[in-house]
Amino acid sequence: MSASQNTSGRASASVNALAGEIVDRLVAGAAQYRVHVSRGELGELLIDAGAKVPGGIDVGLLLTEICMGGLGRVTLAHAPGAPKWPFWLTVSSNDPVVACLASQYAGWSLSHEKFFALGSGPGRAQARAEKLFEELPYRDQAERVTIVLESAAPPPKEVVEKVATKSGVAPDKVAFIYAPTQSLAGGAQVVGRVLEVALHKAHELHFPLDDIVDGIATAPLSPPHPDFVQAMGRTNDAIIYAGRAHLFVKGPAAAARELAEKLPSSNSRDYGQPFAEIFKAYKGDFYKIDGSLFSPAEALVTAIETGETFRAGEINEALLDKSFG
Amino acid sequence: MSASQNTSGRASASVNALAGEIVDRLVAGAAQYRVHVSRGELGELLIDAGAKVPGGIDVGLLLTEICMGGLGRVTLAHAPGAPKWPFWLTVSSNDPVVACLASQYAGWSLSHEKFFALGSGPGRAQARAEKLFEELPYRDQAERVTIVLESAAPPPKEVVEKVATKSGVAPDKVAFIYAPTQSLAGGAQVVGRVLEVALHKAHELHFPLDDIVDGIATAPLSPPHPDFVQAMGRTNDAIIYAGRAHLFVKGPAAAARELAEKLPSSNSRDYGQPFAEIFKAYKGDFYKIDGSLFSPAEALVTAIETGETFRAGEINEALLDKSFG
Amino acid sequence: MSASQNTSGRASASVNALAGEIVDRLVAGAAQYRVHVSRGELGELLIDAGAKVPGGIDVGLLLTEICMGGLGRVTLAHAPGAPKWPFWLTVSSNDPVVACLASQYAGWSLSHEKFFALGSGPGRAQARAEKLFEELPYRDQAERVTIVLESAAPPPKEVVEKVATKSGVAPDKVAFIYAPTQSLAGGAQVVGRVLEVALHKAHELHFPLDDIVDGIATAPLSPPHPDFVQAMGRTNDAIIYAGRAHLFVKGPAAAARELAEKLPSSNSRDYGQPFAEIFKAYKGDFYKIDGSLFSPAEALVTAIETGETFRAGEINEALLDKSFG
Repeated sequence: MSASQNTSGRASASVNALAGEIVDRLVAGAAQYRVHVSRGELGELLIDAGAKVPGGIDVGLLLTEICMGGLGRVTLAHAPGAPKWPFWLTVSSNDPVVACLASQYAGWSLSHEKFFALGSGPGRAQARAEKLFEELPYRDQAERVTIVLESAAPPPKEVVEKVATKSGVAPDKVAFIYAPTQSLAGGAQVVGRVLEVALHKAHELHFPLDDIVDGIATAPLSPPHPDFVQAMGRTNDAIIYAGRAHLFVKGPAAAARELAEKLPSSNSRDYGQPFAEIFKAYKGDFYKIDGSLFSPAEALVTAIETGETFRAGEINEALLDKSFG
Repeated sequence: MSASQNTSGRASASVNALAGEIVDRLVAGAAQYRVHVSRGELGELLIDAGAKVPGGIDVGLLLTEICMGGLGRVTLAHAPGAPKWPFWLTVSSNDPVVACLASQYAGWSLSHEKFFALGSGPGRAQARAEKLFEELPYRDQAERVTIVLESAAPPPKEVVEKVATKSGVAPDKVAFIYAPTQSLAGGAQVVGRVLEVALHKAHELHFPLDDIVDGIATAPLSPPHPDFVQAMGRTNDAIIYAGRAHLFVKGPAAAARELAEKLPSSNSRDYGQPFAEIFKAYKGDFYKIDGSLFSPAEALVTAIETGETFRAGEINEALLDKSFG
Repeated sequence: MSASQNTSGRASASVNALAGEIVDRLVAGAAQYRVHVSRGELGELLIDAGAKVPGGIDVGLLLTEICMGGLGRVTLAHAPGAPKWPFWLTVSSNDPVVACLASQYAGWSLSHEKFFALGSGPGRAQARAEKLFEELPYRDQAERVTIVLESAAPPPKEVVEKVATKSGVAPDKVAFIYAPTQSLAGGAQVVGRVLEVALHKAHELHFPLDDIVDGIATAPLSPPHPDFVQAMGRTNDAIIYAGRAHLFVKGPAAAARELAEKLPSSNSRDYGQPFAEIFKAYKGDFYKIDGSLFSPAEALVTAIETGETFRAGEINEALLDKSFG
């Protein structure tokens, strides 16, 4: 594995190298995973994981591993929490800031003319094109990069060029995996962001990222929906109304307690309706939605320097049922 | 991986090639897995996974993966549903028709004189000797094939020859893995059919197989029993009285709703007694048992074209306890 | 894999060879797993998994696999049993006596001057330096060995020499992985002993080890604590007050019933307080604590020769909450 650097001098794993190994498995097993692999106009690797192909839930779990830059562990099992929705993903990472924020967070706005998608995955940590990276020391320097797109179409060549240029690699060293939110793989990989959403909320709350040392989170698989807004709503609701995250943090117990109390989605003024309804109430203006809504329903935060665990929030089965239908 | 074909022209994964990789692991780890590997009279590979060897539950999980032709994901975890029986298998597949019906279903009657066993596993999809394959386009064309037998004895050479001939390979390219139902591995691999049983019931209900695009199912591990009928009964009861399956289907919501309603075992006239008692009541005549009994206790069916999820049936803890003892 | 022998002549897997493969993954992925790899004075491989490095829970799961000599399966998932502590490990092994007693049990006292640690892991089965091995026929004969230490410091050279000599290998063929109980990896690997603790208690109860053929167990991840006694207390309490173990045994049902009844921790006179408080009440004299306390809260024992399952004990959520805080 090629080593990458963060500015604090610590040698870090290369999220693109680790994810690349999983991409290779997906390519070699294209028939098995029911995905379609091709090369685009500029030689970029294109993997359709749910647009014109079946893809599937197990593919979504692989996409979650890819999005986390190979630094996450993903399990699908029969779990408690919402008896009507028995199958839950559990994701964990012993390097959650890099796995979730530097890699998995869908934070890179990749648009050209009518094409718009938010880029997720390890390529972000090499391009470092987002403001968020001003606060993340991690910088990947891999020979090839991977971007996952919640999209029904492959990116236009202008987007390919942008990703390649920002990443310092040739276009044929860029892999794009795309699946619409409505697809099984696309939906599962968004639910797989349950730990990332907790990390992102912690960051929004100005909790020091260096103090977050480990994390585990879980959420129920959401049933897909053919309508984009409904599909997006359900993946969000899986996290907002049924996600549980457990973070392990350094620093004072008071900070851990405050983080636990503020983390759950129930702190948001917009909490209480399925996400799709909230989205419609704001006439589809995503940025009018209270950002603090994007968080797991329940948070546990363990202050490892004192041994105390703080918790707040709870699973809201009624709302989950209302959303999942 | 060698590619196989289905008659619709889609390139498919080779279930025998994928399963062969797991067979190789089982052979290489024979000491670890406590199985016995040998070559039979015709050169066929024989793996005893529970007859004269301990085998074990973890081996049963591998057998499940092999039976599903490498197209399934299997997890063993502490799960809800029946607190007295805390350990459950969860199986999922993004190609459930091929994984479960073309490969895993124990549908190939392999008998010679006193030997009788139902063949399961990917070899079935190459031999295509069953009537079921008239409706399944999938056809494997691998260089070697694998059959799993719920049996205490290896197959006689006539059965080996039959499997080799029907598969178009030499006998030394056929692997047989056998374990009696009473063994830990044998029992676990039957419980591992919980998704397959849902697929098979859907087929019996004439639900269009092409419309089933994904599936996840779970059931508790059944405790083994030294008596064949009791052992068989428990593995069936794990599914019939405690299995939960979630299918994702294309097509109209009405069809999905009907599938959910008709799928659960509780629709059967024979529902309500441990399987061993039903079997005895019919004087051991398997074919007198209502076929609709073979189904998970609870079904969820999501119509992906409308986003609706339908459910019916429920876990019957009292009957599970009565069966598992 | 190199084959090892037990005195009954059965070829067994080499726990050191199997664990060595996982050690290699840990070394290759040192950046990913946030562990530190170095060579000691005598050339021994040293892996710090939680002393001066973050390590983490996922690393603790790998340590559990290493401790079990590659003969265990480990899953982390959202599970029932104690809603306030939702994430549980499940471990299983189809060779539990070798995996847990010959390998995982922390039974090798390795001390020199001020250094003291209990050695766990497959190296024990090659050195066979403990009285316990008089009753365990398994003997490993690998080219390199691994010992896991619940310790904040690497072993002094005298301990390295002792392990190398007793194992019949050069010091540069010995790997030591160390993590203090207070660390995330250290804590997780102790909770990962939940099946081992059941095996050890069975042995203490003079249940014939050859009759234990399979096992599965689960316990909640314990939150770490900076104080050694509290940290140790929590890892023990995870097992004592919330662990569930299911053993599959040969022999008469009466023996299985007796094992189930005597196995749970609630049989101990010291049951009923968090472990740290018990430890303090005995003024830190570990050996005054009733040995029968070290056991899962709940036991299921299936007599495979009769098919009966016996159970006793139950999860004690109140005590778990008192311990975990």
